Amino acid sequence: MKNTFGNNISVTLFGESHGPAVGAVLDGLAPGMTVDEGVIAQRLSLRRPQGSISTARSEKDPFVIESGVYKGKTTGTPLCIVIENGDARSSDYEDMRFLPRPGHADLTGHIKYRGFEDKNGGGHFSGRITAALCAAAAVLIPSLEAKGIFTGSHICRCAGISDAAFSGSAEEIKKLNEKFFAVIDESAGEKMKENILAAASRGDSVGGIVETAITGLPAGVGEPWFDTVEGVLAHALFSVPAVKGVEFGAGFALADMCGSKANDPFVIKDGEIKTASNNNGGVLGGITTGMPVTFRTVIKPTPTLRLPQKTVDVDKMENAVLQAKGRHDPCIVQRARTVIDSVAVIAVSDLLTTRFGADWLSL
Amino acid sequence: MKNTFGNNISVTLFGESHGPAVGAVLDGLAPGMTVDEGVIAQRLSLRRPQGSISTARSEKDPFVIESGVYKGKTTGTPLCIVIENGDARSSDYEDMRFLPRPGHADLTGHIKYRGFEDKNGGGHFSGRITAALCAAAAVLIPSLEAKGIFTGSHICRCAGISDAAFSGSAEEIKKLNEKFFAVIDESAGEKMKENILAAASRGDSVGGIVETAITGLPAGVGEPWFDTVEGVLAHALFSVPAVKGVEFGAGFALADMCGSKANDPFVIKDGEIKTASNNNGGVLGGITTGMPVTFRTVIKPTPTLRLPQKTVDVDKMENAVLQAKGRHDPCIVQRARTVIDSVAVIAVSDLLTTRFGADWLSL
Amino acid sequence: MKNTFGNNISVTLFGESHGPAVGAVLDGLAPGMTVDEGVIAQRLSLRRPQGSISTARSEKDPFVIESGVYKGKTTGTPLCIVIENGDARSSDYEDMRFLPRPGHADLTGHIKYRGFEDKNGGGHFSGRITAALCAAAAVLIPSLEAKGIFTGSHICRCAGISDAAFSGSAEEIKKLNEKFFAVIDESAGEKMKENILAAASRGDSVGGIVETAITGLPAGVGEPWFDTVEGVLAHALFSVPAVKGVEFGAGFALADMCGSKANDPFVIKDGEIKTASNNNGGVLGGITTGMPVTFRTVIKPTPTLRLPQKTVDVDKMENAVLQAKGRHDPCIVQRARTVIDSVAVIAVSDLLTTRFGADWLSL
Amino acid sequence: MKNTFGNNISVTLFGESHGPAVGAVLDGLAPGMTVDEGVIAQRLSLRRPQGSISTARSEKDPFVIESGVYKGKTTGTPLCIVIENGDARSSDYEDMRFLPRPGHADLTGHIKYRGFEDKNGGGHFSGRITAALCAAAAVLIPSLEAKGIFTGSHICRCAGISDAAFSGSAEEIKKLNEKFFAVIDESAGEKMKENILAAASRGDSVGGIVETAITGLPAGVGEPWFDTVEGVLAHALFSVPAVKGVEFGAGFALADMCGSKANDPFVIKDGEIKTASNNNGGVLGGITTGMPVTFRTVIKPTPTLRLPQKTVDVDKMENAVLQAKGRHDPCIVQRARTVIDSVAVIAVSDLLTTRFGADWLSL
Repeated sequence: MKNTFGNNISVTLFGESHGPAVGAVLDGLAPGMTVDEGVIAQRLSLRRPQGSISTARSEKDPFVIESGVYKGKTTGTPLCIVIENGDARSSDYEDMRFLPRPGHADLTGHIKYRGFEDKNGGGHFSGRITAALCAAAAVLIPSLEAKGIFTGSHICRCAGISDAAFSGSAEEIKKLNEKFFAVIDESAGEKMKENILAAASRGDSVGGIVETAITGLPAGVGEPWFDTVEGVLAHALFSVPAVKGVEFGAGFALADMCGSKANDPFVIKDGEIKTASNNNGGVLGGITTGMPVTFRTVIKPTPTLRLPQKTVDVDKMENAVLQAKGRHDPCIVQRARTVIDSVAVIAVSDLLTTRFGADWLSL
Repeated sequence: MKNTFGNNISVTLFGESHGPAVGAVLDGLAPGMTVDEGVIAQRLSLRRPQGSISTARSEKDPFVIESGVYKGKTTGTPLCIVIENGDARSSDYEDMRFLPRPGHADLTGHIKYRGFEDKNGGGHFSGRITAALCAAAAVLIPSLEAKGIFTGSHICRCAGISDAAFSGSAEEIKKLNEKFFAVIDESAGEKMKENILAAASRGDSVGGIVETAITGLPAGVGEPWFDTVEGVLAHALFSVPAVKGVEFGAGFALADMCGSKANDPFVIKDGEIKTASNNNGGVLGGITTGMPVTFRTVIKPTPTLRLPQKTVDVDKMENAVLQAKGRHDPCIVQRARTVIDSVAVIAVSDLLTTRFGADWLSL
Repeated sequence: MKNTFGNNISVTLFGESHGPAVGAVLDGLAPGMTVDEGVIAQRLSLRRPQGSISTARSEKDPFVIESGVYKGKTTGTPLCIVIENGDARSSDYEDMRFLPRPGHADLTGHIKYRGFEDKNGGGHFSGRITAALCAAAAVLIPSLEAKGIFTGSHICRCAGISDAAFSGSAEEIKKLNEKFFAVIDESAGEKMKENILAAASRGDSVGGIVETAITGLPAGVGEPWFDTVEGVLAHALFSVPAVKGVEFGAGFALADMCGSKANDPFVIKDGEIKTASNNNGGVLGGITTGMPVTFRTVIKPTPTLRLPQKTVDVDKMENAVLQAKGRHDPCIVQRARTVIDSVAVIAVSDLLTTRFGADWLSL
Repeated sequence: MKNTFGNNISVTLFGESHGPAVGAVLDGLAPGMTVDEGVIAQRLSLRRPQGSISTARSEKDPFVIESGVYKGKTTGTPLCIVIENGDARSSDYEDMRFLPRPGHADLTGHIKYRGFEDKNGGGHFSGRITAALCAAAAVLIPSLEAKGIFTGSHICRCAGISDAAFSGSAEEIKKLNEKFFAVIDESAGEKMKENILAAASRGDSVGGIVETAITGLPAGVGEPWFDTVEGVLAHALFSVPAVKGVEFGAGFALADMCGSKANDPFVIKDGEIKTASNNNGGVLGGITTGMPVTFRTVIKPTPTLRLPQKTVDVDKMENAVLQAKGRHDPCIVQRARTVIDSVAVIAVSDLLTTRFGADWLSL
């Protein structure tokens, strides 16, 4: 199933950047979940470019729920949400038609789709499609939060600057989910923005790391092989454009730890089994421990640059130089963070439904 | 599908560490693929504990192909391979029955399976099940290599020591695939082993990083959303016990690069489009570029230790101390590497079959 | 995957009868397939109620292709087609809110969706959703026909009257596909219509049997277990509202045949292996023989009647009598036939793609 | 997923008739289900040829549970059951190597698997593989029955003789499940057997119809589109060798009914909503009503005959005559019935788990 993710709750994506619309079909929903269009709008707005550090393309994201909602509640049947495209300037892409942007999907898309792909604005590879992911997740978030399950991220590192440590608590998540530029330490955030603008002024771009926590998940969710919590999350996360690595808990730092330090000791706390540390990111043997599920996702620098870059002319099959026009984000870390949360929300909802049955999210 | 992976070529795993057998069913194979039992035996031997740096459990891995092979060729119908267990000492686990090992799946398995799980030797969570993965991959390897597709890994880092750089060439892969302790720089390998033994003598364990290349893949394989090459590989890789992070190409280092450095310039080389660098690990927009697909996987230190560790008694619900008996690997990085290759072989065969049809691997 | 069908080519349905729209996402398409909006409109018109024997609801079926098509060709990315609803009279359903119609999904929908379902016009259970199926299939039909694969049906039996025998030839299929009331013997068709109108005038309804042929399929498509050609087709066909039975080839008549009569002898014809008869409906061991795949589908009489019917009031939990208002088809056999063809087209396209790879339909 | 069926409970089949073994992997089981090897043996014995009306091949069906059971209970991890083959006389098939049997999968298997298939005894197409299906279902049956869900069939028609009517009650099901030749009217059964023997003495074979009921299913299980109860059951049922049609409730007879007769009136009975008749076979809109799910499956006459039959020599590509040797069933209806029940048990367990969660079968 190519553009579909999930076993019991699934999301199917469609759309091209400069086509009529992007959208998603969300299936497997429990009936009776409250759908809050305000939450959808707010989540779309968090993903939308804002301010000088993002593309100047104005994305309004007017969405229509075509199905699956009746009187403000899910019916349990497929929910299709369509977000119209607008303000598309395809002419910006005309000159680059045969000059694939390095680091971008232009070339691989051209090979896979044999020249029939819609190249404008990146077509189906565009980050624009993630608006549909965010809208789909926004349908699920209120029901998860009603169960005490909160998902949020901060910009852990960006443009060479690190944010303060993230506790992963529900309170901290709620605060981050109200911010567009989601940092814990605002002064670090200011430095990040300065560095982003500096790169932008050079025609260059920067990347970063997003750190995410899902808190309140019951223990015992996930499978020992293949449909591990880590595997299911990572599968979906690598769809987020620019993601090139995912690590759980202490992640790559575990390579240099001894077992006696890496292992999270079990302790009884308020009558429940917890771990004293969380180097395993809330997952052991592919299954949730009940501790927050924590992971970091690396976002490569935006590939489209104003700087001249070496490429090839795929029509003439000769070396060439590309100098991109159009509007581009010098950094997408701050926007990717909402997409990452959205992907996590969808994957976790699927795992919970597999474990507890079709209606669990509305019980 | 819980213990099954793959859409067009799929593998289904079964078995417990101390049960009668572990095994796998491989489905979707092209008919007429040559099955070489010598390759299966060799791959199982690479995974098997060897020497003083591994567990003393003697694994002979006698395997039987129950179906799907006729006169040395795949029939195209499901291939079931069963590997008998032997030399299991379940009594080693009796004392620890209610004392979950920190960092291990004992507790989460207990919660998910409500006490009905077979705890002996880690049961279905045991690394023993990966023998079935290696056997299944060994069925596919000769057909991939006949297509010029080679998969191999080295121990990039272990016990605080780094190996030399890995080119990812077919030649280097072939050399590595003949080594049990797969390093490029043998002197670095010796230091790793020293450090492993030192940790072992303290009753502790170490982790590391495995670096993998899949070379010779045609461009245009993979999907833009969800079934990206990275997503499909990562999904499967997080099943390998102890894996806590996966990064492609330059991975987490991309966080601190500028776009102008991170982007891999396109160049014409011998009439084909290549990239001058490979920071994207051979994948753009989820789709292969034709460059080697490269990734690194972090392996956490083996959780079972001789050192005393804090845990809880899940029966009495009180804090406790665990001192594990039994035979344990102080390091599994050298063994995990064969499992990682095997997972990559299975995932890549599935992606290729989805792209080119059911018979491609034997055409 | 609940409202999604197919492994390599898949269709996902959404929509409620009186909601904003119904639609489908078609994924796994080869790039470069010609999309003919005229074919889509024609297929939608064949499904649409026409004349006195159908509901008076006027369905115009204005459709929008939201994605996946560029300059008249598929891009290879998901194609979403949205068909707006219009002319919905929900008030017709108000009185029946707690009185489930016998033979209809009202009661089971109410139980499954716990009262949150959109009951208007049958909601997600409405035959209206099949418009999306027909539109999706219409995207595939030109590419199949370019490969010499034709799918068509006739009304084999309706309202007690049988049509003439169906050869299943491409020529006969083409003729049938231009007719709204698809019979081979027009005089039989006239009698069917008379009987339908007679039943309608009594406030009653009638059923029938649709007979379908898919001709030109290559031999060797399908799987021996589970994904048999018959199993995959039947899986999808039972989604068509009112279908209660599917039989292939001679079907239930095989129960009373001897093997020596039932077996289709193999013969060489024009250098190819054919069967002299086709009692097996073009499928042996779940796999196509190269002969036409033939099947019959029984369509139960439309459940909604003007006649009073015994039901229960699910609110008061007491016996009740229902006399349906609203506009209803006294017979849907003539419309179901286009839906059955559409389902067959989708299922067969999936099987072909699984066998021959992602691009086969546009090669 | 080719030889795998099911979303949340799945079965994967493997094996060839004359290979080392046939078997199945059952995944998605709840932990703590009681596994009764006596039930497995009894179900295998019901499927096994018995008496003069079946093949003389002696099938003992010695089975081994390789995984997934600990101390007589399911662990919740994959259960692999392997049934060794024995008493295989491959030489019987040598002469027929290039002469595909009409009505059998020999030719289509040869085309699909390009000559690499194991032809002996029908290879992977053999009815022998259904032993694995029966064993897998036998794992599920005790847990379903503990929930009040009973599945059983009778030979509704065979060799031109009809059995008495089947009530579908749990009591009648229990009685049928103890019989090898499952008829309600023993005198009808005797006539069937006479006719079977008469056909056998002519070197011919006969077919029949199996009628099945699944009683005690909760209302609200199944999906409106694609994963309808009928679609999921039919998908699996068409895997049973020789099945060529499936009809639910009144099935094809609905074609000639009026709506006022076909509709099942709702009535309150003992405080619950029931239907006064069951023409819809316990399913409306794809979803269970709570009435018994009833269906009939047509079994074509066994294709392998002693009578000479027209075929082609696929090596020389010329017309030929085949006179099969070997041991063959003149009728498999009495054996197919246990396989049909088994398939129904697996499909229904999957639907129930999708609805109510992973652990429902052991709660």
